[in-house]
Amino acid sequence: MLRTHTCGELMEKDIGREVELCGWVDTVRDHGGLLFIDLRDRYGKTQLVASGAGWVVGHSFKPEDYVRVKGKVQRRPKGTENPNLLTGQIEVAIEFPLLDSTTCKPLPFEVVKSRETNEDLRLKYRFLDLRNPAVQKNLFARHKAYQAIRRALDERHFIEVETPILTKSTPEGARDYLVPSRLNQGEFYALPQSPQLFKQLLMVSGFDRYFQIAKCFRDEDLRADRQPEFTQLDMEMSFITEEDVFTVVEKVLEAIFKEVLNQDLKTPFRRLSYQEAINQYGTDKPDLRFDLAVQCLNEIAADSEFKVFKDVVSKTDGAVVGICVPQGGSASRKDIDTLTDFVKNEGALGLAYFKVVNGALDSPISKFFTPNVQGRFIQKFAAADGDLILLIADELKKAIKIAGALRLYAAKRENLVDGKRFDFNWVTDFPLFQWNEEEKHWESEHHPFTSPNMEDWVKYKKTGELGKIRSSAYDLVLNGSEIGSGSIRIHRRSVQQEVFEAIGLGKEEIERRFGFLLRAFEFGAPPHGGIALGVDRLLTILLGLDSIREVIAFPKNQKAVCPMTEAPSPVAAKQLKELGIKIA
Amino acid sequence: MLRTHTCGELMEKDIGREVELCGWVDTVRDHGGLLFIDLRDRYGKTQLVASGAGWVVGHSFKPEDYVRVKGKVQRRPKGTENPNLLTGQIEVAIEFPLLDSTTCKPLPFEVVKSRETNEDLRLKYRFLDLRNPAVQKNLFARHKAYQAIRRALDERHFIEVETPILTKSTPEGARDYLVPSRLNQGEFYALPQSPQLFKQLLMVSGFDRYFQIAKCFRDEDLRADRQPEFTQLDMEMSFITEEDVFTVVEKVLEAIFKEVLNQDLKTPFRRLSYQEAINQYGTDKPDLRFDLAVQCLNEIAADSEFKVFKDVVSKTDGAVVGICVPQGGSASRKDIDTLTDFVKNEGALGLAYFKVVNGALDSPISKFFTPNVQGRFIQKFAAADGDLILLIADELKKAIKIAGALRLYAAKRENLVDGKRFDFNWVTDFPLFQWNEEEKHWESEHHPFTSPNMEDWVKYKKTGELGKIRSSAYDLVLNGSEIGSGSIRIHRRSVQQEVFEAIGLGKEEIERRFGFLLRAFEFGAPPHGGIALGVDRLLTILLGLDSIREVIAFPKNQKAVCPMTEAPSPVAAKQLKELGIKIA
Repeated sequence: MLRTHTCGELMEKDIGREVELCGWVDTVRDHGGLLFIDLRDRYGKTQLVASGAGWVVGHSFKPEDYVRVKGKVQRRPKGTENPNLLTGQIEVAIEFPLLDSTTCKPLPFEVVKSRETNEDLRLKYRFLDLRNPAVQKNLFARHKAYQAIRRALDERHFIEVETPILTKSTPEGARDYLVPSRLNQGEFYALPQSPQLFKQLLMVSGFDRYFQIAKCFRDEDLRADRQPEFTQLDMEMSFITEEDVFTVVEKVLEAIFKEVLNQDLKTPFRRLSYQEAINQYGTDKPDLRFDLAVQCLNEIAADSEFKVFKDVVSKTDGAVVGICVPQGGSASRKDIDTLTDFVKNEGALGLAYFKVVNGALDSPISKFFTPNVQGRFIQKFAAADGDLILLIADELKKAIKIAGALRLYAAKRENLVDGKRFDFNWVTDFPLFQWNEEEKHWESEHHPFTSPNMEDWVKYKKTGELGKIRSSAYDLVLNGSEIGSGSIRIHRRSVQQEVFEAIGLGKEEIERRFGFLLRAFEFGAPPHGGIALGVDRLLTILLGLDSIREVIAFPKNQKAVCPMTEAPSPVAAKQLKELGIKIA
Repeated sequence: MLRTHTCGELMEKDIGREVELCGWVDTVRDHGGLLFIDLRDRYGKTQLVASGAGWVVGHSFKPEDYVRVKGKVQRRPKGTENPNLLTGQIEVAIEFPLLDSTTCKPLPFEVVKSRETNEDLRLKYRFLDLRNPAVQKNLFARHKAYQAIRRALDERHFIEVETPILTKSTPEGARDYLVPSRLNQGEFYALPQSPQLFKQLLMVSGFDRYFQIAKCFRDEDLRADRQPEFTQLDMEMSFITEEDVFTVVEKVLEAIFKEVLNQDLKTPFRRLSYQEAINQYGTDKPDLRFDLAVQCLNEIAADSEFKVFKDVVSKTDGAVVGICVPQGGSASRKDIDTLTDFVKNEGALGLAYFKVVNGALDSPISKFFTPNVQGRFIQKFAAADGDLILLIADELKKAIKIAGALRLYAAKRENLVDGKRFDFNWVTDFPLFQWNEEEKHWESEHHPFTSPNMEDWVKYKKTGELGKIRSSAYDLVLNGSEIGSGSIRIHRRSVQQEVFEAIGLGKEEIERRFGFLLRAFEFGAPPHGGIALGVDRLLTILLGLDSIREVIAFPKNQKAVCPMTEAPSPVAAKQLKELGIKIA
């Protein structure tokens, strides 16, 4: 090694020792002939002091120069110790000569402030951005999480298997990235959107428990939390029920939280069905760090004299739903207008509101509600004086959805969200299919390998009510974000074939795209299921960051470009010719 | 769980227990109304016995059916125990009803004999091939190796970082796989041939010690031990010398050997320079499981009366080199012919041979060698009676290379290779450049990021003798295969620029392809170096297999095709249109 110690380890016990250190100049303070230099590396900072011959070495140091120095450890003068640093009791008096250095050009941004810089500039100089300890620490956390994940799964007899990157299209609903084949011209590999089919085949092979921290690829138009390539913790198990998956994932998350945050995560997580989630929170990914449950008030609204409500609830599928904001009653006219604008923007016709005052409802429209009806409203929400009730009247599904959005919006405005809390929930029993109104056919709510609830399947396949069939799909939701999605899979050829047909795939297409899977199901396939967790998003939330780019070493920008390497880039005509393709 | 136990855990202590088992029917033996069924899973086998109501359950079982059964654990009748199985003391009497099953169609090959099957058929039914315990065990070994690698590196403060798969071409000498960009039409990502530049940038960022078990991609014409995608253990360290890399890699390999083979690997490995390797073994990847060192006999040959030898050694660069095969003297005329054919096939004009008999040389040409010269030959090889000396006379480099090949060939023929031994060697001090005779320019022997030996660099850059410049590149060789390659890297912009120019890159091309690296070197880059180990090849050798396909879950065949999924495959015209490309 070119150093005897790192910049994070010299302490009182080392006083008197001759040392060699390598690192980056963090700061330089010149006290006239006496220089104080903080030398930084991944492990910490050590104060160098340069005077006399040492001054000759240190006087040209600039921030972010790399230097290798030798010197002697000495006690810092009394009163100048830094109790916040492990190395804060000592300093190193640097000696002549300087052992090595590479200097740093003028910086495009100050390293310690890199996070405040324009993102494309950060990414162009990512190698400097990554010197910022506040940026580095996210990658160290990621490293720790990875080791914890693998330890937890290895202990539980999971086998880590690498599945191909050059493979065949899998139908996860996004565009594939394609790779032209030179040896088989006119044909293309697809980069995997997930290792879904391979992990199912591993179950058919009897591996029993599989995992992989897998790179996946989706050629989508990018949003803040999307990247062309992302990482998922991919798992599959045989001979299990949903609860077995939940338990393993909870254990893995316990291990991550302990390792990364030194927190004891409370398990098991709450389970709620898709229908419960929708009805109570207006979404299939409820944020339960706060309550504000959505209530349906049809029965009470029907007894009011308010025409809007009465009309809506008289229709099939009409509903009056709403939330109660605790102590939201101090809202001004302007606050109410803001909330109204919000729900209108979400598609509502309007927003009814009531302040709870002296056990009654106070509102421009309260005259349409008898004291008895008012009391029932208050009772329904278990509302107290000072609360604010907000109601939407519309078609049921739409009303619930808007109320769910309003719930999130109001909670944020009212600071009801505990930013330090991590709230995990399992949402279960998703519908198997959803109707695609544009293309006029059923499609899979999760993916077509999801097992139906077999009772529903038998019952509603006959009646053609495909929308009523529940599946064994489940999502893991953290603070209102979906961070994992899985299911018990189909493992019988006949069921798989029928599901493919139900979503409108023809026999020929089924064979071409999924023939190998159907074939595998003919050779003694076992029941199996699994899950994939979005590692980037999980870490982003866990570390309190606002973009998955913060936990990825070399992310692309929102145009799917790497400003540093300038990928993607034009290629030589010769390369295209060898691949047998042309630019259109 | 759908089972109470695996098929590998029921023992005497479980006798009397009601159990539920899941697994595959391995064998069925019918003793007339009494069936013995071996049920298999990843963990082992358990004997089921079916009679009475149980017979109704078991009588239709066929090999490779998946079944879920319930039953009671009982002691096997005396004399029928199987001491080779952990479960060999017990059997499970299966009870009615059968809990679940999926049947297996007629098999394309017998699972336990899958390795004897035509490879494309194996790969088409890889999900069945992978049921073969002899195939599964390689993937379990791989899993174990991975956990050991990461533990060893995590303990040594290495940080695991994922680098991009969608990136820019890196010059590792092979063709890139390209990925058309939809959002930036006419431009392409390249899949990485290695994470080389990213790991160097991580060093510039101060991560100090990095590793990744990384997928890499090379679009080459395939050979037995090549795959379009392969895995390397990629590492990089700052502030180090070559020896620091060697030590860490030795520790990692110790951990792998302990975990996978339960063997204590002897470290440190032997180090020998490129020049020593070439001179002594005629190759830069010597197999040192046996000796048979190549000797140069020019001085002695000059004193002979044999014209061929005298002519050759009188030329500059002419040489007589050879090996001595211990106890090879029993070779027949036919054996000698075979050896002669071998060296001729390698490009030699002929092969001279001498049997050592009674302390003298016995050969059709021995009359041209005086007793004194014969004695010096024998002394040079420390030969004993019964040995066989084989000599090549040719241009030095060529002669050494042929002698090296002959060395391997003869060792194999004579069974001198200890197949159980693992022999690791570090080969160091590779030349920095090699002359490309076809294209008439210098190229990098390893890659252009390799640091020159700075003394050589200063000296021979001036004289233009680029071929004499040694580098700090090193290879790790196992049993004569290169399994790792690394170097101390260049970390100064000026040196990097000069090396690029020396291999014939123009200024514009340098900027376009490597501008970001050169830029990074201007901001205080630290000295650094590293290595990449070929994980597939390492595991193949370690497990005594003959193809890397045996350690890859879903490999491609030698046409870069996956016979199971049929990737690569044609894609829809719409997809190509969206990507802005056409098939030529």
